[in-house]
Amino acid sequence: MEGLAQRAAECLAEIREKQPLIHNITNFVVMNSTANALLACGASPVMAHALEEVEQMVSFAGALVLNIGTLTPPWVESMLLAAKKARALGVPAILDPVGSGATALRTESSRRIINEAGVSVVRGNASEVLSLTDSASRTKGVDSAHSVDEASQAARDLALAIDTPVAITGVVDLITDGKRTLRVANGHPMMTKVTGTGCLASAIIGAFLAVEPDYLVASAAALAYVGLAGERAAVVSPGPGSLQVNMLDALYNISPADLAQGARIHA
Amino acid sequence: MEGLAQRAAECLAEIREKQPLIHNITNFVVMNSTANALLACGASPVMAHALEEVEQMVSFAGALVLNIGTLTPPWVESMLLAAKKARALGVPAILDPVGSGATALRTESSRRIINEAGVSVVRGNASEVLSLTDSASRTKGVDSAHSVDEASQAARDLALAIDTPVAITGVVDLITDGKRTLRVANGHPMMTKVTGTGCLASAIIGAFLAVEPDYLVASAAALAYVGLAGERAAVVSPGPGSLQVNMLDALYNISPADLAQGARIHA
Amino acid sequence: MEGLAQRAAECLAEIREKQPLIHNITNFVVMNSTANALLACGASPVMAHALEEVEQMVSFAGALVLNIGTLTPPWVESMLLAAKKARALGVPAILDPVGSGATALRTESSRRIINEAGVSVVRGNASEVLSLTDSASRTKGVDSAHSVDEASQAARDLALAIDTPVAITGVVDLITDGKRTLRVANGHPMMTKVTGTGCLASAIIGAFLAVEPDYLVASAAALAYVGLAGERAAVVSPGPGSLQVNMLDALYNISPADLAQGARIHA
Repeated sequence: MEGLAQRAAECLAEIREKQPLIHNITNFVVMNSTANALLACGASPVMAHALEEVEQMVSFAGALVLNIGTLTPPWVESMLLAAKKARALGVPAILDPVGSGATALRTESSRRIINEAGVSVVRGNASEVLSLTDSASRTKGVDSAHSVDEASQAARDLALAIDTPVAITGVVDLITDGKRTLRVANGHPMMTKVTGTGCLASAIIGAFLAVEPDYLVASAAALAYVGLAGERAAVVSPGPGSLQVNMLDALYNISPADLAQGARIHA
Repeated sequence: MEGLAQRAAECLAEIREKQPLIHNITNFVVMNSTANALLACGASPVMAHALEEVEQMVSFAGALVLNIGTLTPPWVESMLLAAKKARALGVPAILDPVGSGATALRTESSRRIINEAGVSVVRGNASEVLSLTDSASRTKGVDSAHSVDEASQAARDLALAIDTPVAITGVVDLITDGKRTLRVANGHPMMTKVTGTGCLASAIIGAFLAVEPDYLVASAAALAYVGLAGERAAVVSPGPGSLQVNMLDALYNISPADLAQGARIHA
Repeated sequence: MEGLAQRAAECLAEIREKQPLIHNITNFVVMNSTANALLACGASPVMAHALEEVEQMVSFAGALVLNIGTLTPPWVESMLLAAKKARALGVPAILDPVGSGATALRTESSRRIINEAGVSVVRGNASEVLSLTDSASRTKGVDSAHSVDEASQAARDLALAIDTPVAITGVVDLITDGKRTLRVANGHPMMTKVTGTGCLASAIIGAFLAVEPDYLVASAAALAYVGLAGERAAVVSPGPGSLQVNMLDALYNISPADLAQGARIHA
């Protein structure tokens, strides 16, 4: 849909102009790659998780990124506090429920953040999204055991139930608010061999939420941008080590015009 | 020994087919590179350290990797809990006693994990292995002050005393269960200029433990694979930054046939 | 100033000869890149933050690096304990007050470390340095909202008040002890698009403090070395992902003679 690709391009241009602060409470595995991806995109990342400072930090932020990848209960409390403050201030927030479904701690923490604080977008893989519904899905770790299609109806139901857009990433990404559904066909299979590409996508959605008030569109735009970076990087990468590096270069070098041309977003 | 190189190749093929979940409780420095190495190898990594979830997570795992590189007492408790659960379930576990010998906290924590929970393999540098015996070795940090040869008898004694194979990595790696001893002559000197190559080796041993019940053979096979990746990467790397990236590409691109041909494992 | 470039070269040669242990209590984002930078430089890095071991670890160290980038109160206590021990033993210490000025926790923690323990050098961006004086500067995150020139007088005042050299990094770095002032004109704009280049610079200053008792000179020498690595890396880097990798290669490959020739340090 040409209109959506154009809007994605406008979002990217606006991020580069405004350089919004993106406040991340995220996992230890991806802190470096997430910060680098946000810088390459044009945003200004900060990582801060202390209960004593998250409310103050989020008050300067254009968006809040919550990611439970290496959670412990005190980190969940910080996420809840930051998310509540974000909501009070009108700062958009995204939750990445990494490994939800694998352990009770992860599933329950994801549900608490959604129910007690509320977020603007939830992004996960199919298994994670299924785990947030009442379906009986289980995932053995942090890699999905289900396809996007298997989880698409659950995503719609979840989005309606929590009144929040839900994004499932996979071969073709699906973003839905329960009424509208968008699909993003950018990306490359080797991205699954780099740790934290999903986390990276969630952080970039954060940057797009900071400039685009239609969170469904913002999420699709961000996923097209990340997928396009993966495609470009894969062409010059003999393996996942260089893919991780080249994705950062691609995120940095993709212009709004490139994104308008390369984004494959459709309804 | 051609038979061992062939078994190494079979292990690698089996990892890629089964994609075992490898549960890591590891240090902050190497979480990203470890996760990427395990993905490149073909395994499915997860990092989880919360006391509330380690027992549940390890129950899905093909192996458990414990690494004390940036330990604090609560992390040691999580490692003990996970290791005990792993033992109860028959899930193999490897301990990397990073910096053991440098501080009392590290030496005592390593000994507690070995004595109170038990593991399937211990892998360290010469100084770390010496610190786990009653010898008076001290190391000033996390880099070894001793050669593999200086620690080989201590490794044999330790392996017998704790009834667990011990691997010392260095110019030529040594793996011993006290009765049998294997040596692995793969690797490249520049690998010592990349942080966490030892930690990476321990994680890859974890993946091999998940498919090979002879832990001595599994450890040697994994070290040959990591060393071969270092050799291949060094050829195209002008420095340690690119070596770290190219090692991930090499881990991804080395086929079982490459490993059968390139592994230099001997008794 | 040719004499200063020559001293920078001598420092680098001495680091490579002595391989000093550099004890880091730093943030999660940069632990991997910091450790790799110190290895590439020729030093031996260790990350250790447990209250139970920081005093013992710092007793072997050539320098202590404190960085509050992802601080929580327990980490600040560990930094205070390590810094006091370092002072008692004559081990030089550097403080990187990441994000000071953004939140009360960060500003107060930085001031506590300086006032209660004392350090040998403080390095920050202009906003961070301003936040440590009584000026009303505020910074919204971890990126500077001020130029080096805007903070140069504040840096001189601060250095005199706390009797400690202060370094501000920016387009041209400024290092002052209140009486003497040096400037370093090495570097490249793309370095601001890699997360933690400031943190990396602080860690490398740590390595130079371990061999050069004139901390003003040590800081300028380290910043010239890091800036030169950035310049060299930028030539071959299409974006910030490859810049991060190539900077490590450059840190590794720059010889003392290269540094003597390329350092642009002037009074």
